[in-house]
Amino acid sequence: MTATGTIRGGRAPRVGIVGAGQLARMTVQAAIGLGVEVHLLAANADDGAAQVCRNVAIGAPDDYAALQALAERCDVVTFDHELVDVAQLRELERAGHTVYPRAGTVAVAQDKARQHALWAEKGLPAPAHRPAADARELVAFGDRYGWPLVAKAARGGYDGRGVWTVAGPTAARELVSQATANGVALLAEQRIPIERELAVLIARRPRGETALYPVVETVQREGICHELIVPARIDPALAAEAERIGLAAAEAAGATGIFAVELFVAGGRLLINEVAARPHNSGHFSLGGCVASQFENHLRAVLDWPLGDPSPLAPVVVTHNILAAEWTTDLCAGLPAALATPGAQVHLYGKQPRRGRKVGHVTVLGDEVEEARGRAARAVAALGGVIASGADQRTPPRDLLSRGGAARAAAEGA
Amino acid sequence: MTATGTIRGGRAPRVGIVGAGQLARMTVQAAIGLGVEVHLLAANADDGAAQVCRNVAIGAPDDYAALQALAERCDVVTFDHELVDVAQLRELERAGHTVYPRAGTVAVAQDKARQHALWAEKGLPAPAHRPAADARELVAFGDRYGWPLVAKAARGGYDGRGVWTVAGPTAARELVSQATANGVALLAEQRIPIERELAVLIARRPRGETALYPVVETVQREGICHELIVPARIDPALAAEAERIGLAAAEAAGATGIFAVELFVAGGRLLINEVAARPHNSGHFSLGGCVASQFENHLRAVLDWPLGDPSPLAPVVVTHNILAAEWTTDLCAGLPAALATPGAQVHLYGKQPRRGRKVGHVTVLGDEVEEARGRAARAVAALGGVIASGADQRTPPRDLLSRGGAARAAAEGA
Repeated sequence: MTATGTIRGGRAPRVGIVGAGQLARMTVQAAIGLGVEVHLLAANADDGAAQVCRNVAIGAPDDYAALQALAERCDVVTFDHELVDVAQLRELERAGHTVYPRAGTVAVAQDKARQHALWAEKGLPAPAHRPAADARELVAFGDRYGWPLVAKAARGGYDGRGVWTVAGPTAARELVSQATANGVALLAEQRIPIERELAVLIARRPRGETALYPVVETVQREGICHELIVPARIDPALAAEAERIGLAAAEAAGATGIFAVELFVAGGRLLINEVAARPHNSGHFSLGGCVASQFENHLRAVLDWPLGDPSPLAPVVVTHNILAAEWTTDLCAGLPAALATPGAQVHLYGKQPRRGRKVGHVTVLGDEVEEARGRAARAVAALGGVIASGADQRTPPRDLLSRGGAARAAAEGA
Repeated sequence: MTATGTIRGGRAPRVGIVGAGQLARMTVQAAIGLGVEVHLLAANADDGAAQVCRNVAIGAPDDYAALQALAERCDVVTFDHELVDVAQLRELERAGHTVYPRAGTVAVAQDKARQHALWAEKGLPAPAHRPAADARELVAFGDRYGWPLVAKAARGGYDGRGVWTVAGPTAARELVSQATANGVALLAEQRIPIERELAVLIARRPRGETALYPVVETVQREGICHELIVPARIDPALAAEAERIGLAAAEAAGATGIFAVELFVAGGRLLINEVAARPHNSGHFSLGGCVASQFENHLRAVLDWPLGDPSPLAPVVVTHNILAAEWTTDLCAGLPAALATPGAQVHLYGKQPRRGRKVGHVTVLGDEVEEARGRAARAVAALGGVIASGADQRTPPRDLLSRGGAARAAAEGA
């Protein structure tokens, strides 16, 4: 259907979501208040969002017949992740279905090389970079921009997977050989001495109206986001520059829905790390921490409705991810202790805990950053989640380099 | 099952709700974040909560086999309304199931005569009152306490239904004759010159730990709550007294879960109007207006988990109910305009609009009462809801006095 913005009387608007992880789960939650009916295309019946939604079809995100069936049931199709086939999205658009973000935006979000090309075209700052088709190119890049360099899988990486620090020519040749064997295209990036990481979240309607969330500081360990601090502890001028870059990137990508721009602060300057064209982990603070959450605003944006107020609800908002530890076996057992932490807002994703897996998050509101961080950390510790640890990034994770690994991994990531 | 508080490892806690109206719907929404699995016993497959819940059994709230099946699937059974058979709840308790609020509390909540007896026993203030078994008793009460008097259906009334202002002996005899013909037991109450109406919302755990929401002022028109204003515009000493009475009433009733105490302010004094032992319309401001909503705290309380923070998120929180007007045909059509109102948080209940029906509410946060009220009113007007109007209370509504009318009416009320 193509009725977005002019949904016919009597029935609830229907939003189809490809993928059924925690982002879809929290979008389902937001849809209840708006009276929006969510239909899911879930890989598995027990995916986080599928557990809490009435309308679930089981199918692969790149099964065109399943996508088409979803589009025919819904007023608009949107996404929980980027592991879709852009050619299929273009086909849906040609057939007259409304797809937000549009295929062209998804193409940018799923491909880091394409992102770099777009930022270069628009004059937006990013680290020096180059696609590395073979070992010679990767080594040449390192020789020019310095070792160690950063190599990234052009597609499918997340949470530090698909990102490698490469010490020198020998390591570069080894990585390329593994990548080639597994069909992973590599991108070389200059290694930046990162002082701080930020993210800018933007909700954007089809004709460009935006709502801008406060700039969030993301605390990463080994490439995994552990903590969000709002507002970011940076100079207001730098925050304003981050907002300007974020808005320009969203416009350059033609985003509709939530668009997240991850930024490095290095040498007092901002550089775009990567972007996502959907609700994003760096925006989880907005759920219970802002008047309208990123999930509500994603729905409002893709339905071309006026956007909700992204203002924060307290001077400080802190979110800690719950990353399962080796010994996390039962989140329910720790939940009462977590809930006893004053003001702790706990969000669980309905996932079985496995080491390093993001299984939920805790948000707290406060007046003072360190006090709020302490409360959030205590609640997460009570749940048996860990703040430190995470996968070792010095060697290529096998599950990304093995065939199908990226898709499998991303189904539980974001 | 009886595992509350000690739910066995591995699986999500399960809460069964009898009834599937908007209160259950917003509880389903809160359950997603907590990882709690809600199971509903719904009268109809298209009830507001049934639309958004995976686990729905269709059955009457007083079908013992259906209740038993629900209790066997769940760790605790709770309620969306009071139209249940207390004897059946006692039977569930005897069979070892956990039922919160307990049968004894539900018995108080569903019977205004019993409430009056309890307040008298505990020394809690309430209007002068007396059960009126016949016209002679009703007339004698009016002669003693003054005309007009207020007559109430002892059970099943809500939203001004089941409440009548009786001008004099002739009207009294007419009302009793209709009530008797329809099996409605009447309670006579002294008519109070109401200056203001308040409500106190309390979340209470099985062993008595409580969380107290800020005292809310309820703006009623013809017995229907149109608007909530937090904090109530009263003297702090009176607010403290309201809190004291509310807590004492919840304790007297042995409440577990949310307990709502409606109060009149008359001659500068407080009098208990009536109570509910479940999430209540007067607490809707807490959803998006407080750190933890009444729906989240109802779940936490009935699962015997630590309670969430009931603190408000802004100096002023205002909620307007959306009462469908004659001309309200399509809430979706008005939704974009409502969402364009700055900061408007819209909650729709998935109900077909029919004149006078509560189909949703809008909450706004602000710094100043009249400004916030204005915004909420504008959003509601955009949705095609009305602030004024409501059913005419001067004559007995046929649907309450007709057989089965109370049950039918309450299934869409609260």
